[in-house]
Amino acid sequence: MKMIRVALAALALGMTGTAAHADTLFDDVQGITLDEEGKIQRFVALLVGDDGRIKQVFQRGEELPRDVDFREDGRGRVMMPGLFDAHVHVMGIGFGALTLDLSQTKSLEEAQALIAAYVEEFPDRPWILGRGWNQEIWGLGRFPTAAELDAVVGDRPVWLERVDGHAAWANSKALELAGVTASTQSPSGGRIERLPGTRTPSGVFVDAAMDLVQKVVLPPRPVDRDLALQAAQKILVRNGIVAVADMGTTIEDWQSFRRAGDSGALDIRIVSYAAGIDNMSLIGGPGPTRWLYGDRLHMAGVKLYLDGALGSRGAWLKEPYADAPDQTGLPLATPAQLRNTMSRASLNNFQLAIHAIGDAANAEVLNAIDDLDETYEGDRRWRIEHAQIVAPQDLARFGQLGVIASMQPLHQTSDMFMAEARLDPARLEGAYAWDTIRENGGHLAFGSDAPVEPADAFAGLAVAVSRQNAEGEPYGGWRSEEAINFEQALAAFTTGAAYAAFAEDRLGRIAPGMRADFLFVDRDPTMASPSQLRETRVLETWIGGRRVYREAE
Amino acid sequence: MKMIRVALAALALGMTGTAAHADTLFDDVQGITLDEEGKIQRFVALLVGDDGRIKQVFQRGEELPRDVDFREDGRGRVMMPGLFDAHVHVMGIGFGALTLDLSQTKSLEEAQALIAAYVEEFPDRPWILGRGWNQEIWGLGRFPTAAELDAVVGDRPVWLERVDGHAAWANSKALELAGVTASTQSPSGGRIERLPGTRTPSGVFVDAAMDLVQKVVLPPRPVDRDLALQAAQKILVRNGIVAVADMGTTIEDWQSFRRAGDSGALDIRIVSYAAGIDNMSLIGGPGPTRWLYGDRLHMAGVKLYLDGALGSRGAWLKEPYADAPDQTGLPLATPAQLRNTMSRASLNNFQLAIHAIGDAANAEVLNAIDDLDETYEGDRRWRIEHAQIVAPQDLARFGQLGVIASMQPLHQTSDMFMAEARLDPARLEGAYAWDTIRENGGHLAFGSDAPVEPADAFAGLAVAVSRQNAEGEPYGGWRSEEAINFEQALAAFTTGAAYAAFAEDRLGRIAPGMRADFLFVDRDPTMASPSQLRETRVLETWIGGRRVYREAE
Repeated sequence: MKMIRVALAALALGMTGTAAHADTLFDDVQGITLDEEGKIQRFVALLVGDDGRIKQVFQRGEELPRDVDFREDGRGRVMMPGLFDAHVHVMGIGFGALTLDLSQTKSLEEAQALIAAYVEEFPDRPWILGRGWNQEIWGLGRFPTAAELDAVVGDRPVWLERVDGHAAWANSKALELAGVTASTQSPSGGRIERLPGTRTPSGVFVDAAMDLVQKVVLPPRPVDRDLALQAAQKILVRNGIVAVADMGTTIEDWQSFRRAGDSGALDIRIVSYAAGIDNMSLIGGPGPTRWLYGDRLHMAGVKLYLDGALGSRGAWLKEPYADAPDQTGLPLATPAQLRNTMSRASLNNFQLAIHAIGDAANAEVLNAIDDLDETYEGDRRWRIEHAQIVAPQDLARFGQLGVIASMQPLHQTSDMFMAEARLDPARLEGAYAWDTIRENGGHLAFGSDAPVEPADAFAGLAVAVSRQNAEGEPYGGWRSEEAINFEQALAAFTTGAAYAAFAEDRLGRIAPGMRADFLFVDRDPTMASPSQLRETRVLETWIGGRRVYREAE
Repeated sequence: MKMIRVALAALALGMTGTAAHADTLFDDVQGITLDEEGKIQRFVALLVGDDGRIKQVFQRGEELPRDVDFREDGRGRVMMPGLFDAHVHVMGIGFGALTLDLSQTKSLEEAQALIAAYVEEFPDRPWILGRGWNQEIWGLGRFPTAAELDAVVGDRPVWLERVDGHAAWANSKALELAGVTASTQSPSGGRIERLPGTRTPSGVFVDAAMDLVQKVVLPPRPVDRDLALQAAQKILVRNGIVAVADMGTTIEDWQSFRRAGDSGALDIRIVSYAAGIDNMSLIGGPGPTRWLYGDRLHMAGVKLYLDGALGSRGAWLKEPYADAPDQTGLPLATPAQLRNTMSRASLNNFQLAIHAIGDAANAEVLNAIDDLDETYEGDRRWRIEHAQIVAPQDLARFGQLGVIASMQPLHQTSDMFMAEARLDPARLEGAYAWDTIRENGGHLAFGSDAPVEPADAFAGLAVAVSRQNAEGEPYGGWRSEEAINFEQALAAFTTGAAYAAFAEDRLGRIAPGMRADFLFVDRDPTMASPSQLRETRVLETWIGGRRVYREAE
């Protein structure tokens, strides 16, 4: 036993000695990347050091090193930077993959059939959990009801989140377990939907009201969380996403990230924004964490919410909803609360990432940033998440205040028809206004908001340049003056997202000193039409000089 | 900028290459360690690899390697294994060092003077926090009162824990902030002391009642926690303690440990036992954590409490206290609760470390272990923390059930006179019964319970072999038949403590494959009398082959 131990120690030492000099040359690639000015640059080879960083990039005609330890033949394929998704919910992606997915259903009946099949497939699950339904796509003209779920499953509780995560749908068993009855009041910041003309809960809960049921759902076990993280990782690397900003990390999420990091099972790079102030203090302590596990994990700041979503009319608007003249949505904090919370985070150098969807919410966050910016000097990189509906006069303020607009192209095409119902044309002037924000000096960082939308950055790039959905609708693009060009879109999904996470010194470009995060893809995206761009296939994903995904042959 | 980055990367690679072969020879030492059979072995030199592990140990006459990278001349000094304290509260040690220390006061008046000086020294602290008082030592014959604190400080709240952590003393301002009045009921598992013949709270709160005030004390900030950890580390390495079992780690404590580990500021080795089930799940997730930071941090299990302490009559006894015939102490869980909690932890392979001081508590934990031992097979290493008063017929059960008796020699001398007041001689038969437990095959792991006692393992060793306090009292030792010999005592503070933490494969001995954790001390402890042993000076402390402490010249 003693002998074996000694021998192993010696072996470990030997390996370290050798590995220290192992460089890998990737040659015969059609490389594209952005340079520091955001212009496309091409290259033909790449030298990656043993530490997972890029040592050298070779342009056509430059002499390649002969004496390298390893060589990867690019076989003429296109190499591009790994994509950085600036707004995801990592555990949500994973749990989404492990739970019932209703996002592809086109009708209530189709959803009911899927639920019935799932219930049969998993007879042991105490709760039937799912997400992704959208009554707008179903053409229902109203929310679904508990009775419509009871028709499928009555003996076990069912709890299904809407596609935007701002509403959820329960069956009667779940209502019973939650103790919700006709006499239950809607909590502040939320709404219990009622059957028309009655106080009877209809089964759908909006925003803060979701807690009434959520609190009785059995929480996932740590082992489930770890499975979810692995499932999320698989989805992300398959889609060419090498880094994400995780929006709303709880301490449980963080511990799962760390377990993966500790055991060498963390492939992707996660920049974490804690779910509120308490998680912020628990996770970060006196300030943002270090970059851990070779730049794979870093807690940078805190995610706050100022309003809800447009679909559930939770977005806070300056004027009432066009299709609900008695509603303007809800601010989730008073001006003083917002500034106090921002102040507490800024004091300890945590970055702020604030969810604001409606024009009132965006204006208020911009006002708060304006108020705090003088006190908290230095490079703060205030982030507004979504920034979907901005009053036209506020668009230039992103640039003036150096604010990052962390936006999600796919929301534009998913929401466009709904947005036209919710808002009059004057307000649509500042809707998903990527180019205006960019032109006025705002920093664009693009993401998917997965699992709200698929974690599909190539679809995001296609929408960014076209303002059209997968069906090519609408012809010519929706308010196409806000489309941006490919270079700008790629920047928003790489260098812009990295900048938004204080990571531009290590991630986002293929250049010496940066982490070797890149993709082999099946086409040159700079030459692709929007629909071709959307169909780009990721052949291989490399993170830190290590291949983490390869398309099945 | 780009050039500098490349140069730095190259430099980093180069350093790794060199360091991989850097062995250090420690020669001309008078080395002592225990072998696998627990016998003292002597050696004269030691080869330590770059990974901080011991590669080779050389006996007198063996040829030493010539071709080593570094050499440390032992100059004939005594080298011994670093000590492993099997029961401490790391953050308590640190906060203790940063807060008012009343443990050396010999009278109420002396304590009042110290408090007054502290209040003047720190005019900005919103709360005056401290610990360490002991009304027994003061010869007060009763608990102190709020009025006796008010006489010193009235404008700020004061909250002072008793030496055993099982009671605390508040002034009137603190009572006011906590809203405690004559009509406040004592909570279950705790007691509000009252002024004689009245319902008026006297100012002292026992066990669970402490929460009434504790909950309004402003919690330490994360930066305070990090300072406390550094303060604790300083104290431990100065005393020759290289590893500890942390009994009752909260998620906040854990995050502080991780911050230190992440930044390379964690010198000592901490095996963590979470403070209850919720912290267990948060810290460990699906099971015990890996060994992190080169075996410097590991969460192994969970700390539970079944009773309180003897001093405050919270220890749960089979028969009433001799000096309080209406009290038997309090069990803090029902039999079913205890078994359920143990079961939940064991199911996920968390080790159990259960606080039991009274004979009823010890019997009940042994019963529960007996009940669970069949279900949870494998190497469980159930720990009973303290095991101070055990019914004589239960002593052999430690060995029968393979239970670890995690005991604290200094408690024996601190408590002996109090124990004689609390218990009749028949029950003292099983008090601090180290040798009987050992002789019957129980595993001894020794610790200090710091900050309840000083983190002074040499004092612990001295008591272990003598059953005498620093003054040499009582003559011949208190119930000296339970004293153990030096070899056995050293084992309990090294290999025994390592075994109790599932760490015997890496810590506790100076042998090939083990971490290079050792001390230079000013004398040969195998030759020392108890009082000489107690006065041993630590000259240098080395952890993982790195010097972390050196006595000032």
